[in-house]
Amino acid sequence: MDLDLARQLSVTGESKIMLFVIDGLGGLPQPETGRTELESARTPNLDALAKESVCGFSLPVAPGVTPGSGPGHTALFGYDPLKYSIGRGVLEAAGIDFDLRPQDVAARGNFCTVDGKGMVSDRRAGRITSETCVELCEELRKVRLEGVELFVEPVREYRFVLVLRGDGLSDAVADTDPQREGAEPLAARATAAAGEATARLVNRFVEEAKRILADPSTHSASSPSGASESAKRTGKASLANMLLLRGFARRPDWPSMAEVFKLRPAAVAHYPMYRGLAKLVGMEALPTGPALDDSITTVRENWRRFDYFFLHYKYSDTAGEDGDFDRKVAKLEEADAAIPSLLALKPDVLMVTGDHSTPAVLAAHSWHPVPFLMRAPWTRADGCDAFNEVALQNGSLGTFPAVEALPLAMAHAGRLTKYGA
Amino acid sequence: MDLDLARQLSVTGESKIMLFVIDGLGGLPQPETGRTELESARTPNLDALAKESVCGFSLPVAPGVTPGSGPGHTALFGYDPLKYSIGRGVLEAAGIDFDLRPQDVAARGNFCTVDGKGMVSDRRAGRITSETCVELCEELRKVRLEGVELFVEPVREYRFVLVLRGDGLSDAVADTDPQREGAEPLAARATAAAGEATARLVNRFVEEAKRILADPSTHSASSPSGASESAKRTGKASLANMLLLRGFARRPDWPSMAEVFKLRPAAVAHYPMYRGLAKLVGMEALPTGPALDDSITTVRENWRRFDYFFLHYKYSDTAGEDGDFDRKVAKLEEADAAIPSLLALKPDVLMVTGDHSTPAVLAAHSWHPVPFLMRAPWTRADGCDAFNEVALQNGSLGTFPAVEALPLAMAHAGRLTKYGA
Repeated sequence: MDLDLARQLSVTGESKIMLFVIDGLGGLPQPETGRTELESARTPNLDALAKESVCGFSLPVAPGVTPGSGPGHTALFGYDPLKYSIGRGVLEAAGIDFDLRPQDVAARGNFCTVDGKGMVSDRRAGRITSETCVELCEELRKVRLEGVELFVEPVREYRFVLVLRGDGLSDAVADTDPQREGAEPLAARATAAAGEATARLVNRFVEEAKRILADPSTHSASSPSGASESAKRTGKASLANMLLLRGFARRPDWPSMAEVFKLRPAAVAHYPMYRGLAKLVGMEALPTGPALDDSITTVRENWRRFDYFFLHYKYSDTAGEDGDFDRKVAKLEEADAAIPSLLALKPDVLMVTGDHSTPAVLAAHSWHPVPFLMRAPWTRADGCDAFNEVALQNGSLGTFPAVEALPLAMAHAGRLTKYGA
Repeated sequence: MDLDLARQLSVTGESKIMLFVIDGLGGLPQPETGRTELESARTPNLDALAKESVCGFSLPVAPGVTPGSGPGHTALFGYDPLKYSIGRGVLEAAGIDFDLRPQDVAARGNFCTVDGKGMVSDRRAGRITSETCVELCEELRKVRLEGVELFVEPVREYRFVLVLRGDGLSDAVADTDPQREGAEPLAARATAAAGEATARLVNRFVEEAKRILADPSTHSASSPSGASESAKRTGKASLANMLLLRGFARRPDWPSMAEVFKLRPAAVAHYPMYRGLAKLVGMEALPTGPALDDSITTVRENWRRFDYFFLHYKYSDTAGEDGDFDRKVAKLEEADAAIPSLLALKPDVLMVTGDHSTPAVLAAHSWHPVPFLMRAPWTRADGCDAFNEVALQNGSLGTFPAVEALPLAMAHAGRLTKYGA
């Protein structure tokens, strides 16, 4: 459903919708057992729920497409991820909870190593430590450019975020990252006339930053701290003698879920990136603790204030990305154990799915459709007796675009009016 | 399949296609039995047909979207209901069998009540009787506007249709209905420059109509008739002291099924609205009686003249809308009993489905996919042993857009040529 139609059909109401995202939910069979993570996990609550739900598989973007966390979530929020895309710079800023303003331009930065000829010899500067990254960012904050405020924010290891704040900035700037070693870092170049002033500012920043990073005192200055102990040990801090920027982007100005779907939406997620994604569609991101129990408490305490809850559980994905099959199984069992607490809140519609699959055997996100169930009023009988990749093949929803999940939930919650007379 | 592709691939031929629409066909389980209307009905003919058909569920508009009768049918006729939408005024005119000409502008009208300050106090004028509606429409026909012919046609209770006929009219006119009580009726306002002259005409009509409706003699004049007996009893006739207009629309100028699909299509429907819808895609609407047997006789008598028949059966929907589960079951059994007569005509392709679901437990149209079967040559084995919402989950068609039904039928009827070499 495109947003214009959603805007036309959606109505306010008292019903409540909950989306429980078990990040990286879907999996693949472990060669030794022939069973996926979900098939291996003991999930009595999800299995019972599947029996009284409509089931199937949500397809985040398109067949064969492996989604990042951004598109995986925007689809579940009801926004076509191919139309509503998020610039890399914005996603990185969201991931560190940086509160981007509408006029800001953000870019993802890498500290890197250049050789004597100025060619990139290591795009990740030997994977310097996160502590070194913090110290280098502090040094780069000394750069001053007229007419623009600069933020240089550490992310992790060699990664940081550059934010430019000021009037008349544009994200029509091409990457300075040549995306391969042996090449020279590129000068920032405007991809449209509007980007020319910003490209000049970026080039001045890179010039100053290069001077600072090439200065041995930058790195020795950091030596006394505990952080640089590891740097000294690996001898890699001085490898960060240059930087690369990519994904210049402005915070997208999307219509909010309140405006389009007439919902009062809340996000309950511990990780900053998911809170950031939720804020892009106008959700209120509620502070919560790291454990799933913390999140459920947060949902419960705010139950009356909102009619849509996005509840995010991260650790299944982390285990999958680590290729740790058994830990992913354990994390799925942890998610399963939360189901009774969610049902106790009596949401009118409860959806359980993931933003993408993260099979432990791949140790990465994958393109596989994601297990999905929706417990709601006015459903027809479904054929599923368990919540896993095999049993759900009997589900009446089949494999469907994830972007259709919210409209379907809205219908069952009595929040969509008739189309046409 | 979009109409350009359909136009490119369709060919004429001798084969015959029949679409049997059992209006409001799909349902939901009755809480007491856990069985839907179709599961509860005795439908030996449809069950036998399902065993030798390809089956599934047709999705009229989009997941979660509850269709009105208009989009539900245009989709089955092969026209994308989101692209080929029908203005409310046109649908209302179709519903009373008013023969709109291409230049006419039609609007849906409500008689309403305004208070002493001119604010709408009842958008439906206390639901005046249909008889009063007829009388008031007769009074309003006395309005004369220069350069334009006016038609004021009663529909039912407080509802009527206003049609303007003349040169240079436009439907770029916004509603005068404020859509809520406590607000003033809006002046007709052009939504584009082309609508300005029409908006002025509408405002002059409303002004005259308001004067007539506010005049007590308008209402007392109707007192002697039997119709106003009930008006006098309820004391509500004089409540209709104003009117609201919405959905200004021209008859859409759609490509015909003859031009696009190379079919000679006939509609056999007793209710005017469905005949009107069929005429929008260029079908010939054959006169027929109210009973399904009448319709089948009409089909039989015209069998040689056409190669596509849209046969419409209304009463299952009416029972569903009334929330009468048992009557809907009985009406489904009545539809089932017609199947042998249809098969006796030996259509090459027979489709049986609905324009939308109307579960009796909801007493309304719903968003649920609609049971569908297609009996045709060149089908593969399907897994369905009965025609109901549970058994059809084994159908090979799954849940598919209703707009794809006609192209599929065309293929099986040998009426679509190859795409590409």
